[in-house]
Parts: sequence; structure tokens; C-alpha cells
Amino acid sequence: MNQEIIRDSFTLPGEEGYEKLTLDMAKKWGADVIRDSDGTKLSDEIINSGYGIYSTICLIRSDNQWAKENTDKLQQNFLMSFPVMAEDDSLEIEPLKGYFRDQFRLNKKDDPKEFWQVFDRTSGKEVPKEKWIFNEEKETVFITGITPWHKYTVNFLAVRLWEEISMYNHITNDWGDKERLMAVEPRYPETRVNILKWLENWCLEHESTTVVRFTSMFYNFAWFWGSDAKNRYLFSDWGSYDFTVNPVALREFEKTYGYKMTSEDFVNQGKYNATHNPPSKKYRDWMEFVNSFVIELGKECIDMVHKYGKKAYVFYDDSWIGVEPYGKRFPEFGFDGIIKCVFNGFEARLGGGVQGVDVRELRLHPYLFPTGLTGEPTFAPGGNPTLDASRFWVNVRRALLRVPVDRIGLGGYLHLVEPFPDFCDYIEKISDEFRLLKSFHEGKGPRSMSGKVGILTAWGSLRSWICSGHLHEHPEVDLTNVLEALSGLPFEVEFLSFDDIRENGVPEDIRVIINAGCAESAWNGKDEWKDEKVVEILTKWVAGGNGFIGINEPTAVDHSSQFFQMSHILGVDKDLGNKKCMGRYQFDVEESHFVTEDTPEPQIPACGDIFVLDGNTRVLAAEKGAPTLTSRTFGTGRGVYMSGFRFSIENTRLLTRAICHAGNMEEEMGSVTGDNMYTEVAYYEGKGKVVIINNSGEQQSVNIQMKDGSKLQVHVEPYDIEIKEMQQ
Amino acid sequence: MNQEIIRDSFTLPGEEGYEKLTLDMAKKWGADVIRDSDGTKLSDEIINSGYGIYSTICLIRSDNQWAKENTDKLQQNFLMSFPVMAEDDSLEIEPLKGYFRDQFRLNKKDDPKEFWQVFDRTSGKEVPKEKWIFNEEKETVFITGITPWHKYTVNFLAVRLWEEISMYNHITNDWGDKERLMAVEPRYPETRVNILKWLENWCLEHESTTVVRFTSMFYNFAWFWGSDAKNRYLFSDWGSYDFTVNPVALREFEKTYGYKMTSEDFVNQGKYNATHNPPSKKYRDWMEFVNSFVIELGKECIDMVHKYGKKAYVFYDDSWIGVEPYGKRFPEFGFDGIIKCVFNGFEARLGGGVQGVDVRELRLHPYLFPTGLTGEPTFAPGGNPTLDASRFWVNVRRALLRVPVDRIGLGGYLHLVEPFPDFCDYIEKISDEFRLLKSFHEGKGPRSMSGKVGILTAWGSLRSWICSGHLHEHPEVDLTNVLEALSGLPFEVEFLSFDDIRENGVPEDIRVIINAGCAESAWNGKDEWKDEKVVEILTKWVAGGNGFIGINEPTAVDHSSQFFQMSHILGVDKDLGNKKCMGRYQFDVEESHFVTEDTPEPQIPACGDIFVLDGNTRVLAAEKGAPTLTSRTFGTGRGVYMSGFRFSIENTRLLTRAICHAGNMEEEMGSVTGDNMYTEVAYYEGKGKVVIINNSGEQQSVNIQMKDGSKLQVHVEPYDIEIKEMQQ
Repeated sequence: MNQEIIRDSFTLPGEEGYEKLTLDMAKKWGADVIRDSDGTKLSDEIINSGYGIYSTICLIRSDNQWAKENTDKLQQNFLMSFPVMAEDDSLEIEPLKGYFRDQFRLNKKDDPKEFWQVFDRTSGKEVPKEKWIFNEEKETVFITGITPWHKYTVNFLAVRLWEEISMYNHITNDWGDKERLMAVEPRYPETRVNILKWLENWCLEHESTTVVRFTSMFYNFAWFWGSDAKNRYLFSDWGSYDFTVNPVALREFEKTYGYKMTSEDFVNQGKYNATHNPPSKKYRDWMEFVNSFVIELGKECIDMVHKYGKKAYVFYDDSWIGVEPYGKRFPEFGFDGIIKCVFNGFEARLGGGVQGVDVRELRLHPYLFPTGLTGEPTFAPGGNPTLDASRFWVNVRRALLRVPVDRIGLGGYLHLVEPFPDFCDYIEKISDEFRLLKSFHEGKGPRSMSGKVGILTAWGSLRSWICSGHLHEHPEVDLTNVLEALSGLPFEVEFLSFDDIRENGVPEDIRVIINAGCAESAWNGKDEWKDEKVVEILTKWVAGGNGFIGINEPTAVDHSSQFFQMSHILGVDKDLGNKKCMGRYQFDVEESHFVTEDTPEPQIPACGDIFVLDGNTRVLAAEKGAPTLTSRTFGTGRGVYMSGFRFSIENTRLLTRAICHAGNMEEEMGSVTGDNMYTEVAYYEGKGKVVIINNSGEQQSVNIQMKDGSKLQVHVEPYDIEIKEMQQ
Repeated sequence: MNQEIIRDSFTLPGEEGYEKLTLDMAKKWGADVIRDSDGTKLSDEIINSGYGIYSTICLIRSDNQWAKENTDKLQQNFLMSFPVMAEDDSLEIEPLKGYFRDQFRLNKKDDPKEFWQVFDRTSGKEVPKEKWIFNEEKETVFITGITPWHKYTVNFLAVRLWEEISMYNHITNDWGDKERLMAVEPRYPETRVNILKWLENWCLEHESTTVVRFTSMFYNFAWFWGSDAKNRYLFSDWGSYDFTVNPVALREFEKTYGYKMTSEDFVNQGKYNATHNPPSKKYRDWMEFVNSFVIELGKECIDMVHKYGKKAYVFYDDSWIGVEPYGKRFPEFGFDGIIKCVFNGFEARLGGGVQGVDVRELRLHPYLFPTGLTGEPTFAPGGNPTLDASRFWVNVRRALLRVPVDRIGLGGYLHLVEPFPDFCDYIEKISDEFRLLKSFHEGKGPRSMSGKVGILTAWGSLRSWICSGHLHEHPEVDLTNVLEALSGLPFEVEFLSFDDIRENGVPEDIRVIINAGCAESAWNGKDEWKDEKVVEILTKWVAGGNGFIGINEPTAVDHSSQFFQMSHILGVDKDLGNKKCMGRYQFDVEESHFVTEDTPEPQIPACGDIFVLDGNTRVLAAEKGAPTLTSRTFGTGRGVYMSGFRFSIENTRLLTRAICHAGNMEEEMGSVTGDNMYTEVAYYEGKGKVVIINNSGEQQSVNIQMKDGSKLQVHVEPYDIEIKEMQQ
């Protein structure tokens, strides 16, 4: 590297007892801040070594003594009992049966008749409250006057006895009788007072802390555990508001919104309100209600931190419900920074794109821990943390070409790196790479294509750059894969909701809209596509020269004569089995096309019985007689259909070409990409630099376009980076 | 064969000019009847040779001269125009665009405003009649005051110019300017008069005809052709009533039923009323209405035939709409016999099981024609008709073990067999095999398992032993495959509708019910499963010791908390994508089980994201983490799930075992089957015989159980048959 860059912007996890290592690594990696981690402490020697100090706190599980003394103020949620078959006209149900008793107990304090509901899940109807009674002693619900051979469930309020992150770490690491932390409910006035008191006290006791790193605020994502080890995680969703429910909130909501949220509004036939599914209006109201509370109390906490001269950063991962960084009200918190842990590029885009904070920091993987996510060794015999780090870095680096990030860092137990000197060298290398890339973003950002890409989902901008959770958790979610591909591509990206389209039409600068997902999903939109207004606006917009890309079951909902409501633009539709008797247009697959130029045999997951409408649909790929990739001209615009999308280097190129094609931007492509899909290129006009990265494990050669129109051939080592002057 | 059997019951297609061949083959094959075929005539020499004579007639296309003179009395149907996008607030649609003009023209005679409808297919709503006008000269519909960027269709009445079977044969065989036959509409009084007059005349002129072989009655199954050769068959359904529509019928229906059938009741968003889809109440009314007419006029024709001393048989294949042989009113026709062409075993069961006729005849394949169904050579160089015949015979023979059939026969051009003496020998052999099997059915039928199998569909007994069309047309329809497997198995089979279950519960003698199909299909039942009464009755019935087998998406409909409404019995359910966040029970596949004893690695098509409910579901096979075969005990009964079913010898055995297991009949299996799945066994107690057939191309050895409980080992040559005494 021939650049003069200040070696800072790095957060190092320090560790008491390893003072020399801490300070050596701080120097090697260019740290300017030292942090503690779950299970580590910083010694005075470290604290007083002149570095900035981050200290991690999690307000709702911090004062466990208080929690133990106030078990009537723990967090709660609704659960649906497992269904039980009636063999008679009465039935006894044990609501907690099948749930993990270390996590849940019944809320017996608040009147079940106020909050609980019993359902006949055969008919789908509620059982009137007169027909059931709760037996407090037996912890069962007895139902009478019902229909034999129907199955019944009880929706009930459960109190949570173990904060989920504590529970997961405790059980995974076999912590035995180490104290179990509990999550207190801040809606209770006493809890609120205690949280604020505890925080103030903490601020007073942590004079040297420069940044308070909130492990988010008050509510964790939903995670229901079961008693059966063969089905431990009964429900887990990264974005659901299930854990925000409690009697205080329910009553307050009714007062504020003028109607009552029922248990079934949350239980939702046992599907709960998974973020992958389209949200109901009521659920959106509830989210708004909770968000408002989290901001209000959160701001009070942040103000207190500021009062003590410290900065407040939020670590966006656990207990982040109501903190959505792309929520319109997020800036009201007054956070100084946000820290996002990243496995992938889209997460780097998420962290890097947050507005309303001064500092955006990424916590890189691997975490300094003996084992990884699935229990495989990392910093332990058999592990190869350098390889792990390089895999994550290759994912993340692409995104750093596109979005500026202020800081990076690591977390965990620093002493674990000692036996891995190559890892220490590698972190040194990538931290310098990071600083270099960061420097290029100063002034004007990287060159992008003229037309923006819009991602249309039921959630819109609230869930910018994320669906729900990590890519490795739900690798089958097409949109997560699309976001990962887009994270490093030379397109500006905007996230749109159906309301956005209805109210304002498609924003002027958007050239291509992507709708990707299965018919049932929020990413697709489902019932939103029944709104003719949406179809109308988008149809006209495409006809006027724009592009619409549909992936998997785009625009799909059972409505009128078509399943894909934009089939007239996509040129294909899907038969669910009720169009067996309709003829199928016999297409030929086009042998060469702009979209498949780099990937003549694209790897696209099939999507059942997709059929083309007529000869105006050009089929670019097919599998077992069903098209997997098509293009259709509509007016002066285009529709492109892909039957699925999985992130890979090849598919990223395919998507690049599909977007350029859909948006009539084919000719621009050469000015923002090279001719080798295993490399990516970013032109920083403000700096006069071109950055070329090699995303592959082999040496690559790529021709890139220079300012004068000439081509420059560049060789890049495996996974490496090259910098060239824009004007050679 | 050591049996004394009279060599008759065979119908031979004779041919003028080949008198010697005709009489030689009649002798060789044991014919007692000679018939004509489409395109062949019988000479006087043949007619007077002492054989019975079948003559083929098709009433609605017989008097083409009259049809040409009365083109206002041709058959009609509703069509939906191809959708057209509005770019403005008005639009002109050419209804016939995209349709085959040799088949269809507009009905301009009857007021379009009385019958036609225009739909906005974006919103799904009808366009008021005031907003469109029909331009008779331009043959277009002009629509005003509509919404730009919505798509519109016109439902219109089309007159059909070419009878479909004539059209198909004409075009396929390149008949050039050979006359095109037209189908007349018998609802017009003048047509009716002419049909009866023509028939009377025909009877007078065909003195030597002993049997009038009606090529069904008046209405063909639906077959809409398109103008684009790449999508010629726009809609084809073996059982739909689309071709029974015309102004006379529509007006009469309104008078009879007190409400009006609209074009959209037939067009149904372009899906029409495909037999694979669940029928609406209105459509069932229409069917009843048409059936009534077909019976009434049909009976008049049959009575006339009887008056002239002839018998009336119906060939159940073309123009059979309204003639459904399993319709409750079928016996009212007064037919003397029914003839069914058969490729498969289930079709033999269909033909053999018809009530209300004296004679059940099967027309075997191959048809004596140069080419087969897909244009491959049969009686032509490169063809191997003996092999073809043996393949069909192996399919059909299994069924003849189970059901008595009175006659068999062939069709086509007899002269084509001359160069194939091995074919002539083979037909001799199988005709004798047929007579032998027929003789065994005299008195008591073959031994069956104690419990009957019920097939539960939206159509019930009306569509006994058939879904819609042949197995090779829709090999993906699970139930057709199941029927083919069942056709030769030692179970009595009954076809049940949901009304049957609702009104009378499950019949006493049924031990196992099968529900098989995709969620959208009539075979599954779709909305019928929303009826809690049905679920209740079946749940109780299973709990009481019976079995329920679900295949593909059994009992599936979007209702309440489950997709499979009988999931509590099947032990599995399917995630359509909205239960991503629910945990999946981690099952193990059982290594050995009664059901998979003969097929440890069963070939079962996967069905998406199937998950097991809990540890009480036993998984017998799985693919990519999703179960494909499961068993669950419920009360004293059982549920079995299979994610799909395709007919094969191995899967037939798997199904046998699944039924025995579901119905707690495991121990009976040895008394009705052998221990080699490539063979099948039938015990005729009345005759004291055991018949063993080999369905495979290899010699097989099988142990069968004798009356005294001993085992007898039997060797059977490839595709051959062995007969043993029950008491050796």
C-alpha cells in the first residue's frame, strides 16, 4: 500500500491478565479503542493506557438481583399451546406442555380471562370464554361444551424466566450453575425507575469509559424453546415483536389506539408474526406503539450517558426490537454510533447506511471464541481462523467498496489469538485494507449506474438491507441472496413499500424494481398485489421505459385470472395445479443473450410449474421444460423473470446483467464493471482511483475501462486488491 | 391351457377388400362379431358371413349436408379472449384473436349483450354492459371508460365449425380437402328432428347390423385450439361440459333452475371448469341439467334402435359428456352394452364395473393404425406392434383378475396386421387368456382383503376409476397412478364424495380411505376440507380403528392453523413458506418397517416443505430432510402419508403394504398376495383356482399360500400366467 493513512478506527477486545498482548495487538492492528466483551473485563492497566474505552451493557438483564426480587415484573409473551384433540365434549389442556420450563412459566397473576383465548383449530373459531376455566393449581385449562374430534389450543400469557441470550450461551457452553440472567419488563414503572437508577450508578462507576455500548435496548427478537431436544427452537424470528407483549402494554395500547390487541393477533394460528410474513395493519400499529416506548425510554438512557460525558453506541443484534435503525424515528434516540456484526456484505451495507448517527462500526467475524456458530472449532485445535476471517472479509469487502464505514473491530477473548500468529498478521492486513477503502469514500462516492434499483417489499425501507436474520440461517430466502449480491454492485439501492408506491409512485431515479420471494412472504408482498392501484402504477412505469425483475413467485397472490399479478410484464405465470388443462406454449431457449453472456448455463433454482404466456416472452434458461430465466419487452420497458436466486459470484454477475438489461442500461455496464466476473471494480472519481478486488481464490486478469475509453489489463492475486489511477 | 372355453366374445375390425383376411382372423382370434371402423367399410361378403355386426355411428356429425345447410344450429361454447392491456381509457378487443379460426367463429346471431361479458382481469371485476359495444362488421368489442394499464378480456359465445375428432384426424393425417365434419346442436328442435329422422333411416338401411355402436351421444369433451402452432391445444379436458353451452340451453336452464348461468360461470377466469379442479355448485347444476337432456334424447335414439331389433352399445370415449357411465341415471339410457378403449388397468376397471348394461367390452390397444398416439410407428416399418400389445395387455390383465369383462376387441384397419404374423399369434394368445380369466369370475369373484378401500374426492362415484383422461396425458396426477396400482390389487374399491361422508358417514365395510392430489384439485377436495363436519367424522372413524392415507397435499386447504386439515392423523403438514420460523422436529428414518419391507428405498416424488408434527410420527422415508413416507397411530387407527405416488410395480407393492398397514390388515396380506412383488395372485374360491401372473420381463418364482396354510412355489415365465388348483 502506497497510501498515507492514519492507522486508527479499530476496536480491540482487551482482556484482563493479557495486558501485554492487548497493547501489542492494539499497536499491530492500529486500534484506537479497547472494549470489553461478554465474559471479559478490562484491567486498570488497559483502561489507563490512553485508548478509548467501550463498555458493554444490556439494561434489561443487568440487575439480576433486582429481577430475582421482582419476578412479577419479568418480560412476557403470548404462546399457543400445542393442539389437543377432544375425544369428548370436554377437554383439559396444559398450556405449557411441550415448552421449555426453564424459559417459560404461566402468568397466573393477571386474569387469564382478560388476556387468554381458547381456539377450536379444526373450525378455526374461538371458544367463548364462558366455556373454559383456568385451574391455577393444576396449571391447566378445562374446556366444556365443545365438539368431539376437533382440536383445541390455548393462547396464554407466559412469563419468561431466562433471558434468551443468557440461556443460549449458558446451555451451549454448559455453564452449570452459573447464574441465569432474567429480562425485566421496563413497562412496569418500578422497573423503569430501577433501570435508570442502575444506569446512573453505572455511569458514575465507569469514569474511564468513553463509549457506552448498549447491547441494544429492551426487547430481544422472539425465540421460543421447546422441551423436546429434537425440536428445541420452536419459533425463532429475528424481527418479531412477540417479546414486547405484557399486560401493561396491552392495556396501554388499547387506551392509545382505541382498540384491543388480542392474543390471537400475536399467536396468529401458531404462525405468530414472523418477519418473513406480511404484517397486518394491527401488528404494524403494535410495532409503532412499541417503537414509541423504546425510543422514549431509550432516549432517557442515552441522555443520561451523555450527561456523564460519554458517547452512546448501540450494538444492533440482541434485544434490538423497537430500535430498527431504518425506522423513520431512529434518529430520535440520539445515538452517537451504531455497531453491526457482519458475516456478509448486505450486513455491512445495513450498518454503513444507517442515518442519524456519527459513527458506523462493523464487528468482524470470526468472534474470538473457541468454536463457531455451528460448534465447529475456530480458535481451537483443528480451527483455521485465518481462513474463516478471509471468507468473511471477502463477503464484506465488496460492500465496503460501495458504502463508507467508519470503524471495524473484533470481539471475544483476545488471548485465544496467541497461538495463531498468521491470524494476527491477516487482521493487520485487512484492517489496513479497510482504512484504505474508507479513505476512498471521502468526498464523492464510487461511480454507479445511472438508474437506481428499488427493492419492493411489504416492509419497505424499515427493513433496508435485511430480510430477517443472517444468510446462513435461511439460505432459501431469495431476497437475502439478492441483497448479498447487490451489496457489492455498482447500483444505488432503495427500499420501497407498497404504501410508498401507492402514495408517491415510483421515485424518479429508480430504473429497475425487484420483487423477490415466495407467494406467502413479506418480501413478495402477497395481498398487497391485490391492489389494482399498485399494478396500474407499476405497469405504466414499466411501459414508460423501466424494468421490473421478478424472482421466485413475484407479485403472486390468488387473485383474478393470474397468479403473478405482473405476469403481463414478466411474461410468465405459475400454475398451482388448477391450470393443468391449459396448453403450454412451446418455447425455445435462446442460445445467446446479453443477460447470460458470462453464465451461459446459469444455476437457478426451479419454481414448479412456470409457463410462458406467449411467443413474446424470450426464454433464456429452462429446466425440465419450465423456464427459469426470461425476458419480455413491455412498451419501452422490460420484465425479467428468474425462478429463484442464490448468491454466488456467477449469479451476482447474472443479476448485474439482468438489471442492466431490464433497465436498458446495457451500454453503461462496461464503465462500472470489468470483464471478469470474479473481480469487482470501483471507480472513485473524487480520488481519481480505481479499486479492483479479486473475490476468488485464483489469480485473475481483468480489463477495465479508463477515463479516455481505453482498456487497462489488471492482474489481481487471489482474494487480493489492486489500486490504479483512473487516468494512467 | 387345459380349460374347455368357448372361443367367442371377440370383436374384430373387418375391412372391405380383405374378406379372406377378415374371416381368417375372425377364426384365429375367436371373433363372434365383426365391426367397421372410422374409414373402413364392411363388404356384403363379410356382412353375410354369419357373424354379429357392429356398426359405428356418431349422431351429431353424421348428416354433414344438413349441418352445412343449418350453420346457425351448430354447437357452441364460451371462450375468453386473450387478455389485452389498456393503455388508455378505451380499448378494442378482437375476441377470436389467438383462436383457431377453422374451429371457431363468433356467434353474431344471438345478442352479445345477453350472453357475453367483459372483465377487467387486473381488478377481477366485470365491466358494466353499458361500457362496451360489439362491432359486428369488425368482429371486435370496443370498451370505454376503463382504467388505463389494466388488462381486459371478453367472454363470448363461439360457434364451432369443425367437429373436434374430425378436425384432429383430418389435420394429423393431412387429409387435405376431405370434407370437414360439423357438430350439430341437438337442443335446436330442428336438429333434434333431423337426428331422429337420420337415425331411423340409418336403421332401415342397415338391416344386417346387430349392434349399433354409438360413438357416445352428443357432446365432446372440451378441446379449444389456438392459432399459434406452438400452443395448439389451448385447453383440453376429458370431462368438461364446455361444449354443451348454447343460447337454447342457457335460457332453458334459467327457466328450470330459477337462476342464470353467466359466461363467467363457464370461463372461470380462463381456467374453465377443468375436471381436475373442484366443481362449483352452479357447475354441478349445469351438469345435471345437461345430463338430463342427454338421457332424454339419448333414450329416444336407443329406443328407436331397439325398435328395429338391434342392440345399442355406447363407445365411451368421444362425445361422451352427459353419458357418464357412473352417473346415477346412466341405466335410464337403456344401453345394452358399453365399450371402453383401454391403455391401462384402471380403464379396464372403469369399463368392467359399469352397472345398467348387459355387456362390458374393452377395445384393446394398439389401434390398427400405421402410427401410435405420439406419431411413433406401430403397424409400419420400425414398429413392433406385438411389443406394444404386450405392454398394454400386462397393464390391463391385472385388472381382469379383479373385475369380470364380457368381451374384448380391436379397432382400425385390419389389413395392416398382415405383415405382422407374430402380432396375430399374440392376439390369439391373449384372447384365450382373456376368456380363461373371464371364466374364473363366474360365480364368486376373486378373494379380497376384508376391508374395502375408499377413494375420497370432490367428484365421488361419478368419476369412479378415472380422474380426467389417460395416464400418459397427465402422469403427474397422483390419483390416476393410485387407481392404476389399485386396478389389479386384492382390495374392493369404492368412490366417495364429501357429500357421501357428510350425509351417511363412512360406509361400514370401508377400512382405509385414500385422499390424493395437489391442494387445488378435485381429487384432493380443496374447500371441502374447510367443512369441520367432514374432518370430525373422519377423525372419529380413524380413531376407531381405521386407516387414512394421504398423498401429495392431502386434505389441504388454507384454513385455520393447519394446511393439511387431517394433519393430526397424517402426522405431517406442509409449510407454504409462512412457517419458516417454526422449528422442525428432527426425525430419524426407520430402517425397517412393514410398509417398506419389499422396497427399502421407495421412489416417492417429494412435495416441498413437508414437516413432521412431533415424535409420534414415524418416518419411513425422506428426501433432502423432508419426509416422503410416514405412519402415525391415532387412537386404534392409523394415518399414512406419502408425498406423491407414481405407478410402478414397486410402488404398487408399497401401496399394498401401506393400505394393509393403515387398515390394520397386515396379517391378511399373505392370504391374497404372493411374496414376489413382480407377480400378482388371484384366488377364485368358487372355481378352486389360483391365477398367478408375472408382470415383469423376467422369469419369477413366487410362494403362494394354499388353503391348508402350506406354501406353494410357482415359477412363471416373463409376462406369462400360471393356473393352480387351490387345493393341490
